[in-house]
Amino acid sequence: MSFALTILAADGAARTGVLTTPRGDIRTPAFMPVGTAATVKAMKPETVRESGADIILGNTYHLMLRPGAERIAKLGGLHKFMNWPRPILTDSGGFQVMSLAKLRTISEDGVAFQSHIDGSRHVLSPERSMEIQRLLGADIIMAFDECTPHPADYTTAQNSMALSMRWAKRSRQAFDALGGSLAGSALFGIVQGSVYDDLRRQSAAALLDIGFDGYAIGGLAVGEGQAEMFRVLEITAPVLPTDRPRYLMGVGKPEDIVGAVMRGVDMFDCVLPTRSGRNAQAFTRRGTVNLRNARHQDDPRPLDEDCRCSACRSYSRAYLAHLVRADEILGSMLMTEHNLTYYQDLMAGLRAAIAEGRLAAFAADFAAAQGAGDIPVL
Amino acid sequence: MSFALTILAADGAARTGVLTTPRGDIRTPAFMPVGTAATVKAMKPETVRESGADIILGNTYHLMLRPGAERIAKLGGLHKFMNWPRPILTDSGGFQVMSLAKLRTISEDGVAFQSHIDGSRHVLSPERSMEIQRLLGADIIMAFDECTPHPADYTTAQNSMALSMRWAKRSRQAFDALGGSLAGSALFGIVQGSVYDDLRRQSAAALLDIGFDGYAIGGLAVGEGQAEMFRVLEITAPVLPTDRPRYLMGVGKPEDIVGAVMRGVDMFDCVLPTRSGRNAQAFTRRGTVNLRNARHQDDPRPLDEDCRCSACRSYSRAYLAHLVRADEILGSMLMTEHNLTYYQDLMAGLRAAIAEGRLAAFAADFAAAQGAGDIPVL
Repeated sequence: MSFALTILAADGAARTGVLTTPRGDIRTPAFMPVGTAATVKAMKPETVRESGADIILGNTYHLMLRPGAERIAKLGGLHKFMNWPRPILTDSGGFQVMSLAKLRTISEDGVAFQSHIDGSRHVLSPERSMEIQRLLGADIIMAFDECTPHPADYTTAQNSMALSMRWAKRSRQAFDALGGSLAGSALFGIVQGSVYDDLRRQSAAALLDIGFDGYAIGGLAVGEGQAEMFRVLEITAPVLPTDRPRYLMGVGKPEDIVGAVMRGVDMFDCVLPTRSGRNAQAFTRRGTVNLRNARHQDDPRPLDEDCRCSACRSYSRAYLAHLVRADEILGSMLMTEHNLTYYQDLMAGLRAAIAEGRLAAFAADFAAAQGAGDIPVL
Repeated sequence: MSFALTILAADGAARTGVLTTPRGDIRTPAFMPVGTAATVKAMKPETVRESGADIILGNTYHLMLRPGAERIAKLGGLHKFMNWPRPILTDSGGFQVMSLAKLRTISEDGVAFQSHIDGSRHVLSPERSMEIQRLLGADIIMAFDECTPHPADYTTAQNSMALSMRWAKRSRQAFDALGGSLAGSALFGIVQGSVYDDLRRQSAAALLDIGFDGYAIGGLAVGEGQAEMFRVLEITAPVLPTDRPRYLMGVGKPEDIVGAVMRGVDMFDCVLPTRSGRNAQAFTRRGTVNLRNARHQDDPRPLDEDCRCSACRSYSRAYLAHLVRADEILGSMLMTEHNLTYYQDLMAGLRAAIAEGRLAAFAADFAAAQGAGDIPVL
């Protein structure tokens, strides 16, 4: 089997291991930087790799619209196109077509919509999503689903989940018809069901019945709050197979990731480190820092004294604050590099803590260190 | 002497050599990337160095306004601030205060103005310009001058040049009073005189009388056209000392640089490679290429097959065209890196051609290769 998860150690519900893929190993728990439009914004791929990333995420919705999946396929696939030879996971387009596209109409078949870029008309269905993700050459392909809005009443959540499960079955069939596994790709199903325990369990059971290479937990981090998210994870993770990776989609803040790892999640993606980096916000070992704060303008210290990234090794807070104020591209570059390095080091810390059976202590230290963010100049 | 120009070879009026400085050697003819606001836009300093740059330029006007010269001095100087340990030349602020600042009033003393950023009031004078450039810690400091507007009638040009020569003398005195040479800095004078041969000669004579470590030719590339610029160079370069570097300010296009080197210029700076890089325009060995042109969207070839930069080694025109269309920061990063590498390789080619006595052939080959820019897909 091309894709195999080897669990090396567990600590409570948390696990650490290696997901082997044809394009390289993914150390879990893993954080996947988001490379929406075939680029992790403001980063060269070699810098993404240096930050510690084993895998990145690409967005089907954006790539199908621009530059187009067929174009990327003709040019040799997404890995070659963007110069990232390691694993890529693509989402199904289901989430973003609902949040970004115009004039959407949902039917049993799929979603018809207009591009937010040029108004052109498109359709996304389980079959088309599988086709696009295969054209892109993704290593991990996500089933096409409907991300249930939040809040949703029980009936709405039930109907939405049921639709996603029918689409999951069609995704599996389409993926197999395209020879996805033989070509070296894996297919992940997505558990839906909003905040309703029985719906989450029904969704997981339906996916297990179909059979996937990995299982994602979708429809969270949409406004339900951290406590509710953790509660849903506590319901959902235990009913997923232990020998398959579990991926919590679109999460999240560092503290969300720590809590989710403690509840058995193996994979994460989020725009937060990259988007925050372009908005002058840094994640550090002492909490978040807003570089627009005037106190940083004369501060000769690095952003995070314990960080190995080039932004922290070679520049002062004063310089980064200057770049941010002057709206310089290098500010986005260095802040993004720092944030991604911080996230990867957090994941490495979590993996080591699990391996050494001290995850609870790690989490307590982490929580204690946060909140010291905008520390005054000494 | 900390600064010394060693001429290694000459070919006609052109020369190649090494300008030794306390912070490292500058191979001449040299191109200086512009790092306006303490950053060469969209570039890490290590990438600027990899492109082949021995020296960069910083802008006194921008830096005095933001983040402020005193602040940079307190933080250890511009080199440390921006993580560029090699030579830096700063301009005097004279050109940009006239092109960017608001509510300017020029007097014998200097220029009073309001910041284009926040409207705050400032004064630039020969004395203040020297002070700022010393606070920044520049290796090469430029005399404060008035860049004569173009076109200018004879009397206007004469009066402007005479003012600049009085300011040049005050610049020299202020630089010496600040101990500039002892601190390891060099001071360059700037020849003015618009397009009038006798004014150019008078200006050069006035500067030689004062005595500088190098001589810049200012007031060109302001709309007079290439032929007129070359004519002024032919008048001016021969009256400058052969053992001092000659710097043509704000120039220019690749073909301008080739022609100016043939007329005896040693140093150049221009925003063209960086600004064009952020505007989808690439300089290549076959001429300029506009990446917004639709034909590039499916082109698997590199921007310039003979280029060593990472944009050309690792990416297709199709990918770069995609980044440009999607307005991705990585597009600016890669295009700028390419353009700066192209410029540095052009300078290396010129140096080698002069050393081998084949500059005329080099220039002919260069001219013949240009104009093939937007080559069709094969």
